[in-house]
Amino acid sequence: MFVEGKLYRTIEASADLTRVTIIDQTVLPFEFKLIDLKSLEDVIQAIKFMQVRGAPLIGVTSAYGIALAMNSNSSDQSLMEADLSLKKSRPTAVNLAWAVNQMLEHLKSYDFHRRAKVAWHYANQLAEQDIKTNKDIGRAGLSLLKEIKSSPLNILTHCNAGWLATIDHGTALSPIYQAFEDGIDIHVWVDETRPRNQGMNLTAWELTQANIPHTIISDNTGGLLMQQGKVDCVIVGADRISVDGQVCNKIGTYLKALAAKAHNIPFYVAAPLSTVDKNFMGDHHPFEIECRDPDELLKIKGLNGNGTISEVQIGLSNAYNPAFDITPPEYISMIICERGSYTPNSIGALLL
Amino acid sequence: MFVEGKLYRTIEASADLTRVTIIDQTVLPFEFKLIDLKSLEDVIQAIKFMQVRGAPLIGVTSAYGIALAMNSNSSDQSLMEADLSLKKSRPTAVNLAWAVNQMLEHLKSYDFHRRAKVAWHYANQLAEQDIKTNKDIGRAGLSLLKEIKSSPLNILTHCNAGWLATIDHGTALSPIYQAFEDGIDIHVWVDETRPRNQGMNLTAWELTQANIPHTIISDNTGGLLMQQGKVDCVIVGADRISVDGQVCNKIGTYLKALAAKAHNIPFYVAAPLSTVDKNFMGDHHPFEIECRDPDELLKIKGLNGNGTISEVQIGLSNAYNPAFDITPPEYISMIICERGSYTPNSIGALLL
Repeated sequence: MFVEGKLYRTIEASADLTRVTIIDQTVLPFEFKLIDLKSLEDVIQAIKFMQVRGAPLIGVTSAYGIALAMNSNSSDQSLMEADLSLKKSRPTAVNLAWAVNQMLEHLKSYDFHRRAKVAWHYANQLAEQDIKTNKDIGRAGLSLLKEIKSSPLNILTHCNAGWLATIDHGTALSPIYQAFEDGIDIHVWVDETRPRNQGMNLTAWELTQANIPHTIISDNTGGLLMQQGKVDCVIVGADRISVDGQVCNKIGTYLKALAAKAHNIPFYVAAPLSTVDKNFMGDHHPFEIECRDPDELLKIKGLNGNGTISEVQIGLSNAYNPAFDITPPEYISMIICERGSYTPNSIGALLL
Repeated sequence: MFVEGKLYRTIEASADLTRVTIIDQTVLPFEFKLIDLKSLEDVIQAIKFMQVRGAPLIGVTSAYGIALAMNSNSSDQSLMEADLSLKKSRPTAVNLAWAVNQMLEHLKSYDFHRRAKVAWHYANQLAEQDIKTNKDIGRAGLSLLKEIKSSPLNILTHCNAGWLATIDHGTALSPIYQAFEDGIDIHVWVDETRPRNQGMNLTAWELTQANIPHTIISDNTGGLLMQQGKVDCVIVGADRISVDGQVCNKIGTYLKALAAKAHNIPFYVAAPLSTVDKNFMGDHHPFEIECRDPDELLKIKGLNGNGTISEVQIGLSNAYNPAFDITPPEYISMIICERGSYTPNSIGALLL
């Protein structure tokens, strides 16, 4: 997408295949800063500290992590270590495991001396595939948006599932970008998305860059807006989807789904099929919800009076900071993926 | 309640009836600062900038505002002007209008030269009455808490309906204080309560002062905790209650009520009967939801690296900041008031 008139992707490999350049998402919207990752360790740090985040982007970044690891040591041992350490960096993102597994599957049949080159090639392919997937998601989502006859069309989104969460175009925001290009009169309610404020920091920044009308609201506000008829649909992304259509996404998604259901408002989840996890099924949640540092809730970054980024401590008690919740299928109208829109209980069949 | 071993109320009249001392709630939990209000204008500023907040405290503070106005001019004209300007300062708080109306009703039959003294006396009575009301609310709420057989008893609360929102004891927190004194093993989940963070700033501070175990969570987290069986009941306050049991309270209350209902968790509203508004009834909301400055969402105060209070800008786009939402009666298990606990559809009958 364009940033101040110039085209960017969220991650790009250097021509000499020695590094990848990312946008440091921890300093947006205050600063647009590119940084280079030159080793597997750089990649793991960038994922852990959320300089890159968003399930699809984490997946592709970890693929490049394997490529960087192969640059320095292409042994089976190095491949296994890269696999393990990447999968530990963000346990919930199934795309990470998916991308790493794809890389491993692909690389292990190659001789050591060819692995680095093959790894870069394949990671680049995953990036291109993500871009195509997201365009297809956008097209499928656009059809759903066109069914809603409101002008302006008020869409609520939670967290950031925009191009910053992917390589380009985004998942939940992809239909919004296509609708805007199509001339549809849209307005986006942007949930702040505490504690890391990805809505306020990233989604609002993206929509500003694209000149799409939008308004930031606190995470508490969606219920009132739905009561008042000011929300026509909700679109969110997903970090993991079970084969029976349960959606694990940013904490707070479930509360918006409950409210959408109560007000008969369509609730859409947009995600690539790689988000669907064959090992995740049933009412019991077979994976642990990632709990992050309480300081993410108790401290916050912003611009101080001098216009420089500064962190302040906003809370003084204990805090608990789980990163995701689970939205059951009965609250989800449609799951939008690269192959079209499917009801939550039919999504699993696409994996067969 | 005790603050570092000393007893305080949130507002106290000076012995010479020339000023009231309040706790500046805009600098908690970072600083415990008392300030004197010496005129009606001081009172209006304190209410508007939320140095005092919480429906019952706003009510009593505005009563003292009338007393301060009578100190300088006890004419009918002055009384009418005080009435108007106070009611404009926070339009949603029905207790404000209630307290001001009570004062006016009481004062207008008195001669000008006696009004000031009578006003102070009557405002003091309203303060004492609030304290007694809250103790009674606590007792009624305690009975409900004792019906839940969980240990620890996990209670979720939104915003601050503690002693800081009243003269003493609080409304939603009053049963919690009594349960703790009673030796019940309790733990409180404290919703941060964006955008003004009254949960993180005030409720967590209160519970810390009282040594009650508690944990701050983002407003997004309650749904997950309920899914995981970690919430035994929800107790919130109210800014206004309709005669048919609709509860207007801090934005985000409704989302928690939806989640509580979905998980069969008791959802209690604790408020004095003065919160019930005879003129508020039916599905249509006959009063405008107060919309506050978007900067409340886009800027935030905290401690900087030097340990001094500093404000940072956290968002750069447009924002929308409505302060309240409406929770319909079907989501409310009981309304706890000074006369006991009532179902939402029976509360209106108490006014007859």
